[in-house]
Amino acid sequence: MERRGSGPATGAHGAPAGPLSDDVLDRMRRYWAAANYLTIAQIYLLDNPLLREPLRREHIKPRLLGHWGTSPGLNLVYVHLNRLINERDASAIYLAGPGHGGPALVAQAYLEGTYSQVYPAVSQDLEGLRLLCRRFSTPGGIPSHVSVQTPGSIHEGGELGYVLSHAFGAAFDNPDLLVVAVVGDGEAESGPLAGAWKGTAFLNPVRDGAVLPVLHLNGYKISGPTVLGRDDDEDVRALLQGNGYDVHFVEGDDPALVHQAFAATLDRCHDRIRAIQTEARRDGFTGRPRWPAIVLRTPKGWTGPRVLDGRPVEGTFRAHQVPLAHPRTDPAEFRMLEEWLRGYRPDELFDADGRLVPELAGLAPRAERRMSANPHANGGEIMVDLDIPDFRDYALEVKRPATERQESTRRLGHMLRDIYVRNAAAGNFRLFCPDETNSNRLGNVFEVENRCFVGPTLDIDDHLAPDGRVMEVLSEHLCEGWLEGYLLTGRHGLFATYEAFAMVSASMTVQHAKWLQEARNLPWREPVASLNILLTSTCWRNDHNGFSHQGPGLIDVVLSKRGTVARIYMPPDANCLLSVADHCLRSRDLVNLIVIDKQPQLQYFDLDHAVEHCRRGASILHRVGSDDGGEPDVVLAAAGDIPMLETVAAASWLRQHVPDLRVRVVNVVDLMRLFPPAHHPHGMTSEEFVELFTADRPVVFAFHGYQRAIHEIVHGHPDVGRVHVRGYNEQGTTTTPFQMCVLNEMSRFHLAAEAIRRVPRLAERAAELTAACEEQITASVTYAHEHLEDPPEIRDWTWPE
Amino acid sequence: MERRGSGPATGAHGAPAGPLSDDVLDRMRRYWAAANYLTIAQIYLLDNPLLREPLRREHIKPRLLGHWGTSPGLNLVYVHLNRLINERDASAIYLAGPGHGGPALVAQAYLEGTYSQVYPAVSQDLEGLRLLCRRFSTPGGIPSHVSVQTPGSIHEGGELGYVLSHAFGAAFDNPDLLVVAVVGDGEAESGPLAGAWKGTAFLNPVRDGAVLPVLHLNGYKISGPTVLGRDDDEDVRALLQGNGYDVHFVEGDDPALVHQAFAATLDRCHDRIRAIQTEARRDGFTGRPRWPAIVLRTPKGWTGPRVLDGRPVEGTFRAHQVPLAHPRTDPAEFRMLEEWLRGYRPDELFDADGRLVPELAGLAPRAERRMSANPHANGGEIMVDLDIPDFRDYALEVKRPATERQESTRRLGHMLRDIYVRNAAAGNFRLFCPDETNSNRLGNVFEVENRCFVGPTLDIDDHLAPDGRVMEVLSEHLCEGWLEGYLLTGRHGLFATYEAFAMVSASMTVQHAKWLQEARNLPWREPVASLNILLTSTCWRNDHNGFSHQGPGLIDVVLSKRGTVARIYMPPDANCLLSVADHCLRSRDLVNLIVIDKQPQLQYFDLDHAVEHCRRGASILHRVGSDDGGEPDVVLAAAGDIPMLETVAAASWLRQHVPDLRVRVVNVVDLMRLFPPAHHPHGMTSEEFVELFTADRPVVFAFHGYQRAIHEIVHGHPDVGRVHVRGYNEQGTTTTPFQMCVLNEMSRFHLAAEAIRRVPRLAERAAELTAACEEQITASVTYAHEHLEDPPEIRDWTWPE
Repeated sequence: MERRGSGPATGAHGAPAGPLSDDVLDRMRRYWAAANYLTIAQIYLLDNPLLREPLRREHIKPRLLGHWGTSPGLNLVYVHLNRLINERDASAIYLAGPGHGGPALVAQAYLEGTYSQVYPAVSQDLEGLRLLCRRFSTPGGIPSHVSVQTPGSIHEGGELGYVLSHAFGAAFDNPDLLVVAVVGDGEAESGPLAGAWKGTAFLNPVRDGAVLPVLHLNGYKISGPTVLGRDDDEDVRALLQGNGYDVHFVEGDDPALVHQAFAATLDRCHDRIRAIQTEARRDGFTGRPRWPAIVLRTPKGWTGPRVLDGRPVEGTFRAHQVPLAHPRTDPAEFRMLEEWLRGYRPDELFDADGRLVPELAGLAPRAERRMSANPHANGGEIMVDLDIPDFRDYALEVKRPATERQESTRRLGHMLRDIYVRNAAAGNFRLFCPDETNSNRLGNVFEVENRCFVGPTLDIDDHLAPDGRVMEVLSEHLCEGWLEGYLLTGRHGLFATYEAFAMVSASMTVQHAKWLQEARNLPWREPVASLNILLTSTCWRNDHNGFSHQGPGLIDVVLSKRGTVARIYMPPDANCLLSVADHCLRSRDLVNLIVIDKQPQLQYFDLDHAVEHCRRGASILHRVGSDDGGEPDVVLAAAGDIPMLETVAAASWLRQHVPDLRVRVVNVVDLMRLFPPAHHPHGMTSEEFVELFTADRPVVFAFHGYQRAIHEIVHGHPDVGRVHVRGYNEQGTTTTPFQMCVLNEMSRFHLAAEAIRRVPRLAERAAELTAACEEQITASVTYAHEHLEDPPEIRDWTWPE
Repeated sequence: MERRGSGPATGAHGAPAGPLSDDVLDRMRRYWAAANYLTIAQIYLLDNPLLREPLRREHIKPRLLGHWGTSPGLNLVYVHLNRLINERDASAIYLAGPGHGGPALVAQAYLEGTYSQVYPAVSQDLEGLRLLCRRFSTPGGIPSHVSVQTPGSIHEGGELGYVLSHAFGAAFDNPDLLVVAVVGDGEAESGPLAGAWKGTAFLNPVRDGAVLPVLHLNGYKISGPTVLGRDDDEDVRALLQGNGYDVHFVEGDDPALVHQAFAATLDRCHDRIRAIQTEARRDGFTGRPRWPAIVLRTPKGWTGPRVLDGRPVEGTFRAHQVPLAHPRTDPAEFRMLEEWLRGYRPDELFDADGRLVPELAGLAPRAERRMSANPHANGGEIMVDLDIPDFRDYALEVKRPATERQESTRRLGHMLRDIYVRNAAAGNFRLFCPDETNSNRLGNVFEVENRCFVGPTLDIDDHLAPDGRVMEVLSEHLCEGWLEGYLLTGRHGLFATYEAFAMVSASMTVQHAKWLQEARNLPWREPVASLNILLTSTCWRNDHNGFSHQGPGLIDVVLSKRGTVARIYMPPDANCLLSVADHCLRSRDLVNLIVIDKQPQLQYFDLDHAVEHCRRGASILHRVGSDDGGEPDVVLAAAGDIPMLETVAAASWLRQHVPDLRVRVVNVVDLMRLFPPAHHPHGMTSEEFVELFTADRPVVFAFHGYQRAIHEIVHGHPDVGRVHVRGYNEQGTTTTPFQMCVLNEMSRFHLAAEAIRRVPRLAERAAELTAACEEQITASVTYAHEHLEDPPEIRDWTWPE
């Protein structure tokens, strides 16, 4: 196979033209060789890391894990960025979309010394090299992916699809940062990635940094070709042009040619980025620039074994993972492995002690310019605390509970507005929302801040500007991905979304939680601001949008994550929401779900009571119950705003119709309080549980989320079989608010009837009393069907006298 | 504002040139007016549907719901497709991405008579019209979206992002079907939609139908502009070209001009589609065709109110939902509403009885050519049963349990291979998988079937062909979306995926479950084949891929869905898998999750026992326990393959070390069996529960999924506080298989220790016995860290003697 290369600076074969002098080219090739060597060594070697002695079978790992295919390309890009950083004093971070290239990024961090700084045992000598190899993808070691353990990474490369959204999130409000995002052609097939190219429509060259995508087409996934890998250049160019890029191709399999071509292309792209930024910062914003993007076509498993058993390996899907799978048992493969490794000439790359030779080590940038040590990739290091106004200033006056309906999230909107003002200079806060900021009643932020859009704007647009920091795009993936990138580089934000459609990006929430879980185990990772997700337009009040908009599923998703990072809050009203939001915005390294609807809702807690309630996480509402502080017959508990409404109304109905029944009412604002303490740090002891819920009385629990989830939370507390939960039960349609409660059997009358049925001493009267409940339900349904709205007494219900 | 129009057939203003005669143009405009009128009537009117009397306040709904903005565009496309269908006898279905345009599609189904056929009360007269309006988006009525209730729909328009993947799924193996997919520019911002354009790389003109995307750019989402709406034509063209399309623009706001331009464009596109298909079917496949796509730019809320309170409405985000929001209370809006409605001249569109006048009714296609009555959109009507071979033919011989390790999914691969063979003529089965068919050990299908790809193929490709029916694309969204479209049009399939990354498309699973839940309430919707999802490469055996690949979250997602549609199976071995798979492939209208790993695993059940076990859903394994059929001291239960392994090993360890302990072992293959019957049709009675788990003995339950989910399932059964669950607890990294169990405290030694601690009569010996367990755990961890693999006695463990 004739080796080839093409790109803007390709010269004649054998004498590649380009910006690299012979000496620099030679050293860069050898640095690349060192990285490739260490990549392979990590995958294969248990010992003898530099082959200072002949390879023996026992030097080879018993279980070969890792992905070679993408690694040489990742290493190539890295080495070239090092040159760029040194020559131009650039501040860059590297996001590796093909996360299976973990050993490549680990090798790079090791070569430039960062790895040994954060993991001193992995020293820059033979013993450290041995440990580097041993740790990779082994029990007690490090994962096979680019991961939280990899210095310089803000992007886990396990699940695919998010490298570009993370990259844009990192670049926002980081004017001097260059974020290089390598997109694999496998990942490029995923929807979230395909939708993330358009980040250019939201990137402002005046105040944001640059994202340089490198679409690395090596042609194959695990076993099939990739769509873009097989597309011709014109289609690939069109696709990226259509997303706003100026596209540069580098293609080939002759290393010398490709090195020169890539160097020239990278220089051109960086020239263009600097020109865009310089002009915009000098003249002000004048329009959406066409940012450069690189398409790099090189063989999969480049420089690896070319043929095995008569079948091509390099350049095919067979190079995806471990191209030689049985070197311990197959003598031919054993020989090929040793030849392959020695082909990089490790003796010339590392000195006697096992350190990279100085002439190569000098190619790495210094200190914080190393991409593996750039503080932006360990955002907690440079995070400026958010200046949060006193949430008490936004409180609603609640003179008498449940007398006024207010949009609770609007109070949060006021607070967010002032957060924008106070942090304008720092430029480190953004709200992310799929085009629903107004709809979610957070629109007061538009008094001081605009929606961000760098495309053409029109007179009729509403609060739209290229320097806005309210990020609205109809993509939960982009909202969450941008926010994650923004947070991991040391900033703050909030993702506000329709509850049901938070499930669209649920997998991202899972992966971010996993990232934080791991980060907490690494002392060198500084804490970052929490991922705050406001779930609003909830299932109970999507009566107008219908069944497809009704789904509290993200609550279950977060419930199953580790207690060290997962939090769920269900404030029942505005003042509780303010207290919770303040807490979440100040917290670190958590995933906080805040669940509250946007519609006008009854307000219960004055400020002081709200603060105290949120501090406790769950409280008895003494005034509402009828137990007079004594032992009740039954406990009515609620978590969530509509459950609170129905519960308090049920208690009121019971006072009126069953005056001798002693009812206790409990509200839970911090759902994690209900766990036993062994399962969650917020969990309550059995004693506390008994204090709230008694030791043995029936508990009728109205829950915002999917009905049965409470059972998995309270398991471990005394006698939990007595907890009877009503909640969202996957019943819904376009109907009235109260009918949603009826459909899911969580209406006040259902709760009252359940309470009646559960109290043994009411057994004789139960049939009569529950029939009265049924009657109310039937009447409300009839009314709704006739008048297309809820009955007046349901709508205008107030606090019990 | 001067009205304008552009496209291939635009003539001079006022005398539009194009394929439509004056008469046809006039009638089409009036048909369009009728549809727009009915759209608005549904949104606004409670009575007086044709304004036969002056509009009064009480004719207007008290609560105005629905989305006008997108509707005129949807109606325009529909009317033009009607013409095409009639002129060319085309078989077409219509997928409305902008699902908020529900009233438009309902209006169309009503105008062509289908609506009255499926809902006879909504007759084609004044009373029917009144009911049509009254039902829309009201309690007891129909949702505001294009939904399962809309005849002709296979695509719910609630959550956005899937219209193109559903469209391609519908077109696969439907050579004579034209699938028109209207993509809104809001939806076009979402990741799943952006990734779905590339369906053209998998659409074979020889055997598949055509997808005609109509990208409808009306410029705005709820309150902001859309990215594509603001992009210039060249960028939009490039984006679609890059995805393989030949792009046709129609732009304007002058109805006459746009009608002519759209008619001409639609004719050209259909000519092109027929040419592509004719040539391919005559000459055979010769390469990936460039399919036509239409970009339609028309104003949002076209023909609606132009200005309100001095602010423009038509053509802006203010036309998104209800452009006149207060006509009941605002006299000016009241007048505007009446004028707006009367502007369509309803008196000239409908006859005295309220029927569409014959000269317009004649424009609608007849019978099954009506898009609302095309049987492909009610796939159960035309579904051909899958010819499934006897699953017993693929059974493993299991002479003695737990003596051999086999890849269970490979047996399923054999069965799937023969399903391909038996149904080759029908062409109604496909396997969908993100490039992991081989990795998931289903590769035997490649003996008879290829991967599908219509781009260029190379010699080195592995089983890749344009007529393959194994669909591999690195996008869970595409895999699931294609399969959903395929199923809803009456075909069969399986989505096999890495367990963790099934969460990527979890929201699609939720929405499809919701679709099926609703479909079951509609007698006119015929049952379709179930959505079968094989979760493999599970958390317990992603020891090699690490923490990001470990997430059984989809189980929790499906658990919360209605019992009418949700099923979860956890076969512990190959023969159980075959029985379960057979059951699932034959089932209808369900979402079936099948959870089993792909690695070699111990085989327990011979065929007969497997069949019987799966029939029961949960059984006592008498041979493994030590209770001799009597009342045990403790029950060890397992759901899932690795839990089964650890449970049986724990029982074995306990027999050996605590011989006087009576242990019962239970395996659960049908997770839904554990629910009480009130909650799930598979649920077991309390008596059955006691029969399996005793009335009061401790149960140590090893669970495949997130640890605490079992508690929400078993709630309602006797004394469930005694159920102690070990399961995936969000602990993981790259390690050995057994260490995954250790990290999550579900290893045999953890289970044994838990059992010991829970049996009161062992209290005195508990410390000593559990210390022995601890010792085993420590030894295994030490071994793994030293040898990078599991200890031999763990690996080679067998059935107890």
